[in-house]
Amino acid sequence: MKLAIYGYGNLGAGVECAALQNPDAELIAVFTRRNPDTVKTLTGVPVYSADSILDFKNKIDVLIICGGSATDLPEMTPYLAKYFNVVDSFDTHANIPVHFDNVNKAAEENGNIALISAGWDPGMFSIARIYASSILPVGNDYTFWGRGVSQGHSDAIRRIDGVLDARQYTVPVPEAVNSVRAGEEPELSTRQKHTRECFVVAAEGADKAKIESEIKNMPNYFSDYNTTVTFITEEEMKKNHSSLPHGGSVIRTGKTGVNGENKHVIEYSLKLDSNPQFTASALIAFARAVFKMHGRGITGCKTVFDIAPADMSALSSEELRAHLL
Amino acid sequence: MKLAIYGYGNLGAGVECAALQNPDAELIAVFTRRNPDTVKTLTGVPVYSADSILDFKNKIDVLIICGGSATDLPEMTPYLAKYFNVVDSFDTHANIPVHFDNVNKAAEENGNIALISAGWDPGMFSIARIYASSILPVGNDYTFWGRGVSQGHSDAIRRIDGVLDARQYTVPVPEAVNSVRAGEEPELSTRQKHTRECFVVAAEGADKAKIESEIKNMPNYFSDYNTTVTFITEEEMKKNHSSLPHGGSVIRTGKTGVNGENKHVIEYSLKLDSNPQFTASALIAFARAVFKMHGRGITGCKTVFDIAPADMSALSSEELRAHLL
Repeated sequence: MKLAIYGYGNLGAGVECAALQNPDAELIAVFTRRNPDTVKTLTGVPVYSADSILDFKNKIDVLIICGGSATDLPEMTPYLAKYFNVVDSFDTHANIPVHFDNVNKAAEENGNIALISAGWDPGMFSIARIYASSILPVGNDYTFWGRGVSQGHSDAIRRIDGVLDARQYTVPVPEAVNSVRAGEEPELSTRQKHTRECFVVAAEGADKAKIESEIKNMPNYFSDYNTTVTFITEEEMKKNHSSLPHGGSVIRTGKTGVNGENKHVIEYSLKLDSNPQFTASALIAFARAVFKMHGRGITGCKTVFDIAPADMSALSSEELRAHLL
Repeated sequence: MKLAIYGYGNLGAGVECAALQNPDAELIAVFTRRNPDTVKTLTGVPVYSADSILDFKNKIDVLIICGGSATDLPEMTPYLAKYFNVVDSFDTHANIPVHFDNVNKAAEENGNIALISAGWDPGMFSIARIYASSILPVGNDYTFWGRGVSQGHSDAIRRIDGVLDARQYTVPVPEAVNSVRAGEEPELSTRQKHTRECFVVAAEGADKAKIESEIKNMPNYFSDYNTTVTFITEEEMKKNHSSLPHGGSVIRTGKTGVNGENKHVIEYSLKLDSNPQFTASALIAFARAVFKMHGRGITGCKTVFDIAPADMSALSSEELRAHLL
């Protein structure tokens, strides 16, 4: 399958790396909104201007769109789905239904297939939730994120006056996780589930007490959490906080038996050194599914719920039955 | 959807319990090879002789076959797939390709759909393996079972002279699990992965030393493992070992990055108070998928790899996108 990347940031570069590990994938182009001459790919894949994308119609089996969910993808995916089979990782949960409708119209009218909200959350975590809740209809779902870097929260801190750089780690509260794993089905407030650790580089002479207070009282982002703020130097930031680890767990606990006498715990967990590289690896597997499904004449907008696992694998059905079942 | 159970042991009774938790499932009949008058169902579902099954053609949407993999299912599933949409939990991994071919022929020729090898292993563990290996093609798979009762190993002990009853627990070796979870990608021998704990009720006057030696040296079952044997009374067996817990973990570790510089760990784990009830709960969700897929005109033999997650859920696609994605 011939793949291309639209948008070359951390995620796009991750897709480029992941393509190397998938012999059935050929990465033919990277598209950027920047001046292509200024963009160097990791493995020498040619870079083109995003403006020239339509010259590649019929040359790309699946286009992987690596834009941001806030403003990029709501525009990009419906537009590009008119001309290509596409995969995106749209992750603004609340806006998924609207995004789905826009993309579905574009893809359906043009005979393409578009998979939205792929990755790990939404994505593999969503898949964990649907399987677990389908099998144990009487039960409770819990999702814990981290320990990992939240880009959105890091960005929010960076917007504060006097802050040069910031990194925010989301950390699950061990007591909460243990209680859930023990099948105790606790009711947990936002504060009881996660803490937030902030590492901040302040400008010289900045009012650190004021910065700390602004962070801790920021609505939505921090005020509902127990938050710690640690001021560090630019050197410490580079040395200790330059990677983007993440992960988390989706846990469902439920009961079976005539009187609900038996408890069960299903847990799906990820521990990732690099959030963008893992997301990118998932996108390639989902792109394979899109490629196979389009080959069977399937069109329109899909989500990870619509993808049979066999379509994600490079192995044949016979190999899968013989070796993975 | 109208469901029926074929074979009423632990698993069949589990399906009966699970049906209560799924409002879209109506359990209309239990079929048994025993005298139906001697079989009492937990919730009053009517019991019929297995010989009368063909009288129910066109009255059952999905028949859940709850027989054993050694001799029952290889006969039952191909036969019943001629007349019904069926689900089984065939779990003899090595014979799945042959079973698939036999069932596929029967189902395909008669316009039915048959899902084989559903449950948790094969089943949900297989699904965990295919997703993880599709996303991280460069990596290693590990499956740990337990702590849980292995019926096959318990039966093997019961066949020894002088043994009245036995229960065998499969136990993962904590050091091995920890090493895998840490991404160390160890090479593990059979002995390094699991230990086997045996609880045995011996007949009065039986030679316990001989029984213990026979267990520990039994090829395939025990000789490759560190095995402990504890003799207990019949009362202790009833009191402490009457439930059938099980579980385990499927772990894949892999690397990404141009030079494989980032490690990732994907883990899917189950902790089950009742192995048959959880398996049964999975079978109902898979039966729902069979029902939906047959409604779309799909026929032939399928495995869990061929099932899109959305088909397992009682929720609509709109609800799934809005709430679970």
